[in-house]
Amino acid sequence: MAIKKIGAQTVRFQNPPSIISTGTVVGPKEGEGPLRAYFDMILEDDLWGEETWEKCESKMQQEAIKIAINKGNLNQKDIEYMFGGDLLNQIISSGFAARQMGIPFFGLYGACSTMTESLSLGAMTIDGGYADKLVCVTSSHFSTAERQFRFPLELGNQRNLTAQWTATASGAAILSSTGVGPFITHVTTGKISDPGIVDTSNMGAAMAPAAVDTIATHFQDTGFSIDNYDLIITGDLGYVGKEIALDLLKKEGLDIENIYSDCGIEIFYQEKQDVHAGASGCGCSAVVFGGYLYNELINGKFNKILLVSTGALHSSTSALQGESIPGIAHAVTISRDI
Amino acid sequence: MAIKKIGAQTVRFQNPPSIISTGTVVGPKEGEGPLRAYFDMILEDDLWGEETWEKCESKMQQEAIKIAINKGNLNQKDIEYMFGGDLLNQIISSGFAARQMGIPFFGLYGACSTMTESLSLGAMTIDGGYADKLVCVTSSHFSTAERQFRFPLELGNQRNLTAQWTATASGAAILSSTGVGPFITHVTTGKISDPGIVDTSNMGAAMAPAAVDTIATHFQDTGFSIDNYDLIITGDLGYVGKEIALDLLKKEGLDIENIYSDCGIEIFYQEKQDVHAGASGCGCSAVVFGGYLYNELINGKFNKILLVSTGALHSSTSALQGESIPGIAHAVTISRDI
Repeated sequence: MAIKKIGAQTVRFQNPPSIISTGTVVGPKEGEGPLRAYFDMILEDDLWGEETWEKCESKMQQEAIKIAINKGNLNQKDIEYMFGGDLLNQIISSGFAARQMGIPFFGLYGACSTMTESLSLGAMTIDGGYADKLVCVTSSHFSTAERQFRFPLELGNQRNLTAQWTATASGAAILSSTGVGPFITHVTTGKISDPGIVDTSNMGAAMAPAAVDTIATHFQDTGFSIDNYDLIITGDLGYVGKEIALDLLKKEGLDIENIYSDCGIEIFYQEKQDVHAGASGCGCSAVVFGGYLYNELINGKFNKILLVSTGALHSSTSALQGESIPGIAHAVTISRDI
Repeated sequence: MAIKKIGAQTVRFQNPPSIISTGTVVGPKEGEGPLRAYFDMILEDDLWGEETWEKCESKMQQEAIKIAINKGNLNQKDIEYMFGGDLLNQIISSGFAARQMGIPFFGLYGACSTMTESLSLGAMTIDGGYADKLVCVTSSHFSTAERQFRFPLELGNQRNLTAQWTATASGAAILSSTGVGPFITHVTTGKISDPGIVDTSNMGAAMAPAAVDTIATHFQDTGFSIDNYDLIITGDLGYVGKEIALDLLKKEGLDIENIYSDCGIEIFYQEKQDVHAGASGCGCSAVVFGGYLYNELINGKFNKILLVSTGALHSSTSALQGESIPGIAHAVTISRDI
């Protein structure tokens, strides 16, 4: 059997899965941002008729999946697996969405790296011949994350300038063994990097070294040059982490500044929307990809991109116990051509 | 490309991965149970020199992986992926273990179903040609789980008779593209079943319908008969869930009573160790498999088993918000012969 591994951490697919459709649902604040025209659904409030924010977040996941299924002209029963995760304890947004959808379910946790974790495992599942169609999905919600990881919202705490604003967003993507693209051609799976940051309001700094390690490994494993890509986009390092990542990459001999962005920077107007260091949350890279990037790949603005979702694998317990924040990043090459 | 899917939810591998070694680390109580002779390491206390139980649990995962690597005559750098998860918020036991081990990491959350979730995805990764060797690992710890999901330990709360005792245990298994077995030949991925149980001290009842659905689907998809198996073992329905599962399976026309057991029943002496409805925790099925079942597959006591880890996908937040407990179960066929 042919080994599809190239280099230390990268897989090159023999039958690259096609991303045949996406679905995106965002909160009101995200719907006022620069990418508003790309989203399928913008909520008027962040409860959406539910009793709790947690139930709203799970409903957003279900709706993102349904939109993707409809846009792909599919039925729910066509979807063989759901690879899903979110930020909440025991990933309840995804678990309850999987209950409502009735799809065989692999629950994932990679913090804000979960979208590319799901695309990586989903792509291996399609390319490996284990399914024809499956859905990858993540979500995050400002109000559920803030009270779980930081402070009660009622406290009205002042936010740190290095803090990122958790996006209220859910994005789904349907992968298929057939289709006209865009295709997932390569995945580079990340190891954990931990620069010793203990401040949970400075996650960009905690995650930047992991993004750098995965991006550098990706170029080493694939032999690609920067010129092969139209865009390298992390998600979500924000303004603080982006600068650190660019600096560290230059030290590795990789100057990607001209083609580099971050999902946590793209989704909000920094000043006007008062988001400090940018956005975060695993729904952020899910909707920036499913909305903006996917559509601009279809439209031809981009030909080939590297999506690098980044996660901070701490909990409020580990933070209180004095542990630093482990960072991780998984990279996925998405291309119009195989 | 050949589709390896058979039936609705089952994959049959063309190049079944070999489980070349396992590693098991358990707490003192588990070390006094009927399976004590099968475990690689029994801790003398449940802190193991660490400041917190959470740090102990993460250290147990690292040790289980190291034991499995040593027993497989491998080096850490031979392991291409770690598929790991645990019960803690943001799966910190696994995240911090992945940080210490430096292995590319896919974080999973399936509650107590996580061991067969990791074996399922790990087996697809090997059979698909994406790796030669990888490790699947989970852990749980009585003291970390009890205070996270239920009450502070200092409260000395009386436990419900339907309650299960979270095992302090971590088990790792190394999968390889080459080897003499036992082999993972089939996986059946579960959908969520939710019978409406809201009592988080009665998880056996909440998970039993999911186990039944996955087992029934497995036989339907594969065309196997009960006679094909020496043992069907869930993990962990405990005494309450086991009876419900047997009853429901009989209604489906499947009488598996003579070859059926549950990891949550095997690991403790029920009366002598005062565990009420049995054990739970994703470390339980990990060490019952990695210790007892794996070694008795090697010894020839068992020729072919179906391991069905079962998970309750609730959180303390979802319970407080009145949500019932979604159950899930993933089945893995492990056989001496391909």
